[in-house]
Amino acid sequence: MPLAERQLIASIRCAAKLRSSALVTGIGDDCAVLRVPRGHETLVTTDFSLEGIHFRREWHPAESVGHRCLTRGLSDIAAMGGQPLAAFLSLALPNDLDQSWADEFLKGLLALARRHKLPLAGGDIAQSPAGVLADITVLGSVPKGRAVLRSTARPGDLIYVTGALGASAAVVEALYAGLQLDRSKLDAHFYPQPQIAIGRYLRERKLATAMIDISDGLSTDLSHICEESRVGGVINETAIPIAKLTSPKVQLRHALHGGDDYQLLFTARPKTKVPRRIAGVAITPIGEITRSRNLTVKSADGTKRQLTSQGWQHFQQNPND
Amino acid sequence: MPLAERQLIASIRCAAKLRSSALVTGIGDDCAVLRVPRGHETLVTTDFSLEGIHFRREWHPAESVGHRCLTRGLSDIAAMGGQPLAAFLSLALPNDLDQSWADEFLKGLLALARRHKLPLAGGDIAQSPAGVLADITVLGSVPKGRAVLRSTARPGDLIYVTGALGASAAVVEALYAGLQLDRSKLDAHFYPQPQIAIGRYLRERKLATAMIDISDGLSTDLSHICEESRVGGVINETAIPIAKLTSPKVQLRHALHGGDDYQLLFTARPKTKVPRRIAGVAITPIGEITRSRNLTVKSADGTKRQLTSQGWQHFQQNPND
Repeated sequence: MPLAERQLIASIRCAAKLRSSALVTGIGDDCAVLRVPRGHETLVTTDFSLEGIHFRREWHPAESVGHRCLTRGLSDIAAMGGQPLAAFLSLALPNDLDQSWADEFLKGLLALARRHKLPLAGGDIAQSPAGVLADITVLGSVPKGRAVLRSTARPGDLIYVTGALGASAAVVEALYAGLQLDRSKLDAHFYPQPQIAIGRYLRERKLATAMIDISDGLSTDLSHICEESRVGGVINETAIPIAKLTSPKVQLRHALHGGDDYQLLFTARPKTKVPRRIAGVAITPIGEITRSRNLTVKSADGTKRQLTSQGWQHFQQNPND
Repeated sequence: MPLAERQLIASIRCAAKLRSSALVTGIGDDCAVLRVPRGHETLVTTDFSLEGIHFRREWHPAESVGHRCLTRGLSDIAAMGGQPLAAFLSLALPNDLDQSWADEFLKGLLALARRHKLPLAGGDIAQSPAGVLADITVLGSVPKGRAVLRSTARPGDLIYVTGALGASAAVVEALYAGLQLDRSKLDAHFYPQPQIAIGRYLRERKLATAMIDISDGLSTDLSHICEESRVGGVINETAIPIAKLTSPKVQLRHALHGGDDYQLLFTARPKTKVPRRIAGVAITPIGEITRSRNLTVKSADGTKRQLTSQGWQHFQQNPND
């Protein structure tokens, strides 16, 4: 093992020392050993963060890349109403990378982990053939049979989103356009927060019938819920909470199709009382689930048009193309 | 999401349909939901398989790459004495890759999964910035407090290995040298079998005091056991079971330092009766754990020399260099 890898493992092992009742054996054995609370099921999610695809080193500070890497996994746990238990990081670094980049990456990842009392319990370190390659695995838990799925939305359910949408896509577009940005005001893109507390709240009070996180964009993620639940949906265009930034300006199309917002999209029975705010974050009804399996958007003037899922293309090509 | 990714996900979802009592919800939601047997702890391991580092497309058939990818994870579960429960595959493919390559990769991975009744329960699919990038996560289970660790070897324990060593490293050296090889006779490198049954046997009968899988090479993996257990060890050079191949010829240095054999290295109290074969595989005593924290090799003539860990360099550079 090259010295750089040894150093990295040593620093991860040191930094990852966080007391956790769930973690029996962490880094330093063939596997981590975890104890899932009695009567709970185990949640598992894995997500890549690949240079050139999910981030660019010239655009994203290493600390932001580390933070976003873990957010991707935590957001999936949030979308099931789960409690995160442990994270596992597979990290491949190119030979010519500064040690300080790896340190800052870990700093960003571990700061977010600490906020959620999440131990970094293992992973893999390798040399990368090209660019920084990360894959995050997060384990979580949820009481048996209580995970909030995508497949359980019912006709008549109202559709809700947490927070505001579109900021991340607007920032990416601005980065492509070469605009000067004040990154310190753009946490929605560089340091998005996974909505763990909201997911838990909705699950504990049985408010949500189905849930997903908005990582691929509202249009795509709503289509996932509708496909899995074999239903359709109609969205009120004017109801969509569009993120407010001074620069760049966020537009409706960013909120409809832009990914990486890490807000939650959920459905609830029409009679269910859903709070207007949960954990300090606004909750907005934006539409309704329909028996007819179409996805449509209703404009201010009442006209309806088809809602086409526009998959989020990350950074491999200009989204304006 | 590009069409190729959709096709791949559809084919994974179809191929991965395997009944499993552990899997509550598989591919198609934000997380997989697993049920770990009552009274058991959860094992987690993640391992990269990166083109140019862990394999080369010109050397390794896609089916072998898929098989070896999963072997890496299963072998870690074996080394804890665990039972594998589910696998998660993060797979990034370059745009210009033939669909048939991905199909063959999955075929190799899923054939090994079926042999171990292991569902492919989730993962991530992405476009790769360069080359094929895979990261496998395997979850397993072990009765509470019964995982066989690296850190519990004691002075006086005997050191054992399963099977024979060095074949994989000898094959890699021959590939670098450009030798013509009959791949059908080289399963030890192209289709290594994780020793799940042996790991379980040793754990169930409480025969092993410590265990690790030989993925980095005997010298390196023994040093891991000794470091974690704060002990040393002496190996009898003549006792090491060297793999027998017609071509290429396997040498002692391959068996001592070569990785990717996926055999198990374990320790047992000197009074413990360890069978000579388990699950049809030879079990060989090769040395002894010492209180003195040195690692040494004893030659046929009784002379001792320091055993230096020679980290396994995979394919990023010629191991002969």
